[in-house]
Amino acid sequence: MNDLSSLHKLRLAYVPRTPEILREAKVEAVEGKRAPAEMEALFPKSFHGKGYRVVKGPGSKPKPVAVGVMFSGGQAAGGHNVITGLFDALPPKSRLIGFLGGFSGLVENKFIDLGAKEIDSVRNQGGFDLIGSGRTKVETDEQLQKVATTAKGLDAIVVIGGDDSNTNGAVIAEYFIQQGLKTKVIGVPKTIDGDLRSEEIELSFGFDSACKTYAELIGNIARDALSAKKYYHFIKLMGRSASHIALECALTTQVNLTLIGEEGLGLEATVSKIVDLIVRRHAAGKEYGVILIPEGLVEFIPEIRNLIAALNVHLDKDKLGPNERKSLLALPAKIQAQLLLERDSHGNVKVSQIETELLLMDLVKKRLKEIGFKGSFNAQEHFFGYEGRSCLPSNFDSNYGYALGQMAALAVREGLTGVICAIKNLEMPVSQWDMSFVPAVQLMRLETRGGKRKPVIEKALVDIKGGLFLYYTRKRMDWEINDHYRYPGPIQFFGPPEVTDSHPVTLKKV
Amino acid sequence: MNDLSSLHKLRLAYVPRTPEILREAKVEAVEGKRAPAEMEALFPKSFHGKGYRVVKGPGSKPKPVAVGVMFSGGQAAGGHNVITGLFDALPPKSRLIGFLGGFSGLVENKFIDLGAKEIDSVRNQGGFDLIGSGRTKVETDEQLQKVATTAKGLDAIVVIGGDDSNTNGAVIAEYFIQQGLKTKVIGVPKTIDGDLRSEEIELSFGFDSACKTYAELIGNIARDALSAKKYYHFIKLMGRSASHIALECALTTQVNLTLIGEEGLGLEATVSKIVDLIVRRHAAGKEYGVILIPEGLVEFIPEIRNLIAALNVHLDKDKLGPNERKSLLALPAKIQAQLLLERDSHGNVKVSQIETELLLMDLVKKRLKEIGFKGSFNAQEHFFGYEGRSCLPSNFDSNYGYALGQMAALAVREGLTGVICAIKNLEMPVSQWDMSFVPAVQLMRLETRGGKRKPVIEKALVDIKGGLFLYYTRKRMDWEINDHYRYPGPIQFFGPPEVTDSHPVTLKKV
Repeated sequence: MNDLSSLHKLRLAYVPRTPEILREAKVEAVEGKRAPAEMEALFPKSFHGKGYRVVKGPGSKPKPVAVGVMFSGGQAAGGHNVITGLFDALPPKSRLIGFLGGFSGLVENKFIDLGAKEIDSVRNQGGFDLIGSGRTKVETDEQLQKVATTAKGLDAIVVIGGDDSNTNGAVIAEYFIQQGLKTKVIGVPKTIDGDLRSEEIELSFGFDSACKTYAELIGNIARDALSAKKYYHFIKLMGRSASHIALECALTTQVNLTLIGEEGLGLEATVSKIVDLIVRRHAAGKEYGVILIPEGLVEFIPEIRNLIAALNVHLDKDKLGPNERKSLLALPAKIQAQLLLERDSHGNVKVSQIETELLLMDLVKKRLKEIGFKGSFNAQEHFFGYEGRSCLPSNFDSNYGYALGQMAALAVREGLTGVICAIKNLEMPVSQWDMSFVPAVQLMRLETRGGKRKPVIEKALVDIKGGLFLYYTRKRMDWEINDHYRYPGPIQFFGPPEVTDSHPVTLKKV
Repeated sequence: MNDLSSLHKLRLAYVPRTPEILREAKVEAVEGKRAPAEMEALFPKSFHGKGYRVVKGPGSKPKPVAVGVMFSGGQAAGGHNVITGLFDALPPKSRLIGFLGGFSGLVENKFIDLGAKEIDSVRNQGGFDLIGSGRTKVETDEQLQKVATTAKGLDAIVVIGGDDSNTNGAVIAEYFIQQGLKTKVIGVPKTIDGDLRSEEIELSFGFDSACKTYAELIGNIARDALSAKKYYHFIKLMGRSASHIALECALTTQVNLTLIGEEGLGLEATVSKIVDLIVRRHAAGKEYGVILIPEGLVEFIPEIRNLIAALNVHLDKDKLGPNERKSLLALPAKIQAQLLLERDSHGNVKVSQIETELLLMDLVKKRLKEIGFKGSFNAQEHFFGYEGRSCLPSNFDSNYGYALGQMAALAVREGLTGVICAIKNLEMPVSQWDMSFVPAVQLMRLETRGGKRKPVIEKALVDIKGGLFLYYTRKRMDWEINDHYRYPGPIQFFGPPEVTDSHPVTLKKV
């Protein structure tokens, strides 16, 4: 058996499609969005109202540069392609290094040189394993000083990360300007969660491959449910707070019920919705079904959100107020334990560890008993997360990541800093993609975190007044009872373009 | 959004490759394996030493027939193709009906007519949803009489099922002969578990697609583990008693450790094996890894097997002997509850419900604490099962299922009964497949089930003296510490044959 699978080898040879314009592109300053005024004090040097468009034309003369690149946060398919795109677009004789394990590699100056051999080994491959990733944040002066030391000799640092990592990149960019360092910081929007969006950033890379992998599995399970006719499958999907992944998968698989956190139902109403589904399907002779649950659902359920907030303040359950105490005790013992015992390094409840799917199954079972339900209710729980973060990137994510890497190289050549690479028109063919660079500060606002006012890039939630969600609400009544399961099947890399080059439904202007 | 995905539609148009010989084939009686003598009393009419080979030549004159087909047991990809292959190969003006929900459809005479419209809707599709499946067994005289009533007017019944279902098919075949009914019963070997094998039956259909789907996910998770470098992933894989699926996935993904139930390690030794892995990887600077656990592992662990056997006899834990009691109390509370509370309709412990992955994680954690392990151990659990049973069948399973269906039509034409369709040389191109019909009784032996001596088809376990397992044992030391993760990626239906037409490693004559 060869260590590299056949598909692995074939994908190494894939040549991403890139926007024509990047062959000879320059950057044009345009009127940008104004950053919130409160940002000026925090980012005096980066605070300005400009934006940058990528346009056709000869830009600055390319000269060799030294660039460091890093991944930060959770894996997303297409990440390796950002690095290969960057590498391929850097002027001859440039040097590219990769910081190991995210920002901690930057702080501790741990890196490897990335040459043709390293780059060629990860073309169109999943994961971040070339240089690893991490969740360290650069916040203290001591850390910033260390980063400045590392940065000496580097023309630019490219940060491939989500909202927090891009915020951190902007903080470092500002610090470099203040310290008179020439090193630029360029951000690349990465997250499977789909919550890093703005007017200019339509979507982050990784979302497409993750959703397609989850949708493959959800479709398989739906077909199994329809065949066996005896189980309700409760499927929790990764994706932190926002329900974008769940909504995308709902539309591509058309399962019976998808809970969208942003609808803001209480726990009682959520349980009722599921119980109602089960009762009505039972009346239609169906004792099976498929229900999608976004990982972040619990944070939208008022009782649990309040409880979590209270537990984040009072580590001890005995210090809870009567309402929170009541909420806590109404939960199954296992979930109580997860809320009380699982804490992150800041002492906060680890929301991702809460087994919402079990919580709901348990409460639904209880309620069905209370109402004297005569049908049968057998549930199976699933959680899909890690399966979709490091998969082989779809053609969409391969092309998207690669183009973002090439854009980062352009930003370096043009001397931009504190900006995030952004592409619009992603639902169009690659040749029509609309590229720009957005100053990160324009996406930020202040939020209280751990008792301190901090700049953050606001997470984009599912717009419950938006076309996509409304489309779903028009369809879901039908999907609840009449099975219209849709089976997307596994990601395809060869064959007709309708299977190899589809893009997320989320991009559709419904 | 179209209700049918693009891939769904494209796969409907796939034309399975079929063995040339089936265009004009006949059946030749050959010397078969002798059935165990004890079978003669149970199967006086079916007990004989003949086998049947499919050979080139004009067979009996085709004449219109009426055939009923059914699925029994768990879903397996390729099942719909057995029906489409059968349909396509039946003589003109024949009638094909599908019994609904497995043997219960046969007992209760519930069926639908299968015409071109129904058949064309499921070509090369996953699931059993065309006619559903079930787990009913036909055992009582009353049931057999009902089946005989249903069978009137049918030339044959085709049972697509696993070991138990094929045993049941043989019982019905014998009953029909005894009653002087003309209806024949043909079996088709189906199960993702890979445990329905004999000298003639190399593998059942469904195994390939299930393993490929699981291997896709395991590869994704391994790449994620290697990128994040902070989790041990404990992945339980469906497949009942035998560890074939786990072994196949071990070889195609090359993860760090795969427990093979058939090795027969005790609980203590199993935990030690994992702890040892973690300690040695920690010494190598690695705090992550991937471990595969076959669903049936618990049944091979002597302490738990004995405990389960005791609990199957004494429903009450207070009646356990001192050893079993000790074994029970050594288990985590949740597992104790699963053993004590979850019972099937026969009052037996539901082995598939035991969360072996959690059990091992828990015991490993405890042991690491005891030995004062200084590294970090964070575990994530997964269970892959339903995801791989009803997926789109791989080309291998599409072709295999279709050929089996065509063989079933041949068996009907040639008037065989009580036989199972069998194909050898499956690792060769379709044109070289070697087809035969095996009398089911030749695969049986008597076993005590529920206190009664019953004929069963023996489950084929992983041969721990076989080439495949030995190959694994030669490799695993290396895989344990040095990461040689292999990423198979999703099943491909287009592109080069090395990705579209690979077959299970299990078939390799190592």
